[in-house]
Amino acid sequence: MKKVTMLDIAKQAGVSKATVSMVLNKRDESISDETKNKILNLAKELNYIPNSLARGLSTKKTRTIGIVLPDITNPFFSSIARAIEDSASSSGYNVIFCNTDNEMGKEQEYIKLLISKLVDGVIFATGGESCSSVNMLKHNSVPFVLVDRYIDGYEKEYGVYSLNQEGVMKGIDYLHSIGSRKIAFVKGNENLQISNERLKGYKKAMDKYCIYDKNLIFSGDFTIEGGINATKQILDHIGNIDAIFYSNDMMALGGMKVLLRNGLKIPEDVKIMGFDNIDICEIFEPELTTIAQPIYDMGKEACNLLIDIIDNKDIEKKQVYFKTSLVIRKTT
Amino acid sequence: MKKVTMLDIAKQAGVSKATVSMVLNKRDESISDETKNKILNLAKELNYIPNSLARGLSTKKTRTIGIVLPDITNPFFSSIARAIEDSASSSGYNVIFCNTDNEMGKEQEYIKLLISKLVDGVIFATGGESCSSVNMLKHNSVPFVLVDRYIDGYEKEYGVYSLNQEGVMKGIDYLHSIGSRKIAFVKGNENLQISNERLKGYKKAMDKYCIYDKNLIFSGDFTIEGGINATKQILDHIGNIDAIFYSNDMMALGGMKVLLRNGLKIPEDVKIMGFDNIDICEIFEPELTTIAQPIYDMGKEACNLLIDIIDNKDIEKKQVYFKTSLVIRKTT
Repeated sequence: MKKVTMLDIAKQAGVSKATVSMVLNKRDESISDETKNKILNLAKELNYIPNSLARGLSTKKTRTIGIVLPDITNPFFSSIARAIEDSASSSGYNVIFCNTDNEMGKEQEYIKLLISKLVDGVIFATGGESCSSVNMLKHNSVPFVLVDRYIDGYEKEYGVYSLNQEGVMKGIDYLHSIGSRKIAFVKGNENLQISNERLKGYKKAMDKYCIYDKNLIFSGDFTIEGGINATKQILDHIGNIDAIFYSNDMMALGGMKVLLRNGLKIPEDVKIMGFDNIDICEIFEPELTTIAQPIYDMGKEACNLLIDIIDNKDIEKKQVYFKTSLVIRKTT
Repeated sequence: MKKVTMLDIAKQAGVSKATVSMVLNKRDESISDETKNKILNLAKELNYIPNSLARGLSTKKTRTIGIVLPDITNPFFSSIARAIEDSASSSGYNVIFCNTDNEMGKEQEYIKLLISKLVDGVIFATGGESCSSVNMLKHNSVPFVLVDRYIDGYEKEYGVYSLNQEGVMKGIDYLHSIGSRKIAFVKGNENLQISNERLKGYKKAMDKYCIYDKNLIFSGDFTIEGGINATKQILDHIGNIDAIFYSNDMMALGGMKVLLRNGLKIPEDVKIMGFDNIDICEIFEPELTTIAQPIYDMGKEACNLLIDIIDNKDIEKKQVYFKTSLVIRKTT
């Protein structure tokens, strides 16, 4: 198995490899048009593609970035990944993706692999505290941008987030404005700071209206199954609850299934709100009311920020925060 | 910005770079345990990670593969991508992913980039005929495996598919067995061979029961919107139809939305069947009856096949075909 090389072109054109190199690298002033055209046509015909790996070794750039995320089949992360890849490819970068399932061991292995492949930078949606992964990146001077998920000391690192607390508060304000008072809240994974941010938003808003009750908080984990399990518990208290705020859409979709199956009407019997605004919110019946994160824009921004860092551009702000917005559909 | 190098370790350990190299490459018989341990500890402390790119240049292997697919946010392809990445990483490979949106121009640009990055191989879900992409791969001796989607001359290429015709026939047999006779069919993109395969299955099965009627065939494109549009047309004929077979799940989910909104009961008024068995079939209400492709297994098989080719193993069969299975849920 062999890639087409300059030597292959040289042999067929009956010239030296040096001549081919000069033509293909546009240092061809001294070469006749006839020879030039012969070489360029052969390069096309033989599908010659320059080896950018060798170039990478001399320029110290591979024009490859890595994205480390929990699971590409989660619609939130597939949208983020799509946005990153779109932006990266329009700047001539390729993207390596890695699924960590929120496991720290996998995360570290991937970071090590990415560094060994000399990626120019990494975009990182962490599955926990990720200290050693972040340290490895720093020690090896590999630039990185955190996306969506905070870590301890995130104020010192580049990152793109949305305003989670404010988003949840916006949702509770709306539920309150349409008459809900007994609003249950389903949390995300407890080891993620983003879960705590959303919980804080819930507490603050409920406190503001003097309707906070810690018995209305239920455990979840950002998965459909997590939403199903939490909702089965909520069913025992359902007479006492008029709305459920799920801290992401996936849990809300799982939860709605349980509620509908148990003969409850949405929104008549119980109002439902999610967080994220993943694409499938709109195809579900009833369509899910949710707090929208600008998912695509966040991915795009993370990628552009990373490329600016790689290119040594001046960066005004290390962290970028996106506003969320309330999307009212049919479940409220 | 600088990666930790052997020289950094040598300086701190007060030894030569050659000594460090010997220790890290396990050619260290002549070196004292004390020096060895000092070097290994420093390597760990400084987060030293060997440069596999330089290694790649000498071994001609980058241990990186590319996947070229229409869109990572499509749940079918995110599942395939996840399976490929799982298998790849367990064999020590990284995966670069590329979204083509079924556009031939993008496809070719990506293939060119992947070849220039010296990927060891490519897994390819084509968006059309893809002649020039396939030719570029062949001319540069980059091994590739087609997945899910056929191209002209696919019998000569490595590929992993499911038995599409047989799958659709299985679905029609089932619909017939439960009393459906007027079964509409919504096609996929007309420029994809896989759409034609599924249509052939529909024709064969309907012919077998002498119930084929070409007026029951509607155009689609494998997207939710395509399903919505086709179903709006079907509504005009709805009195005359007792079941709809959508040639993928995404279109079925879009179509069900239109039907439910128009007050039709599923399955009482019209039975619905999809194709693929993507994860969200199960969270929808009513849950979608479908022809399941073993999506994860197909991705895994494609990746393992590619790695076997890269490793010059003997390959028994160039094409692998997976059987589909009927998954009966609540829409029939």
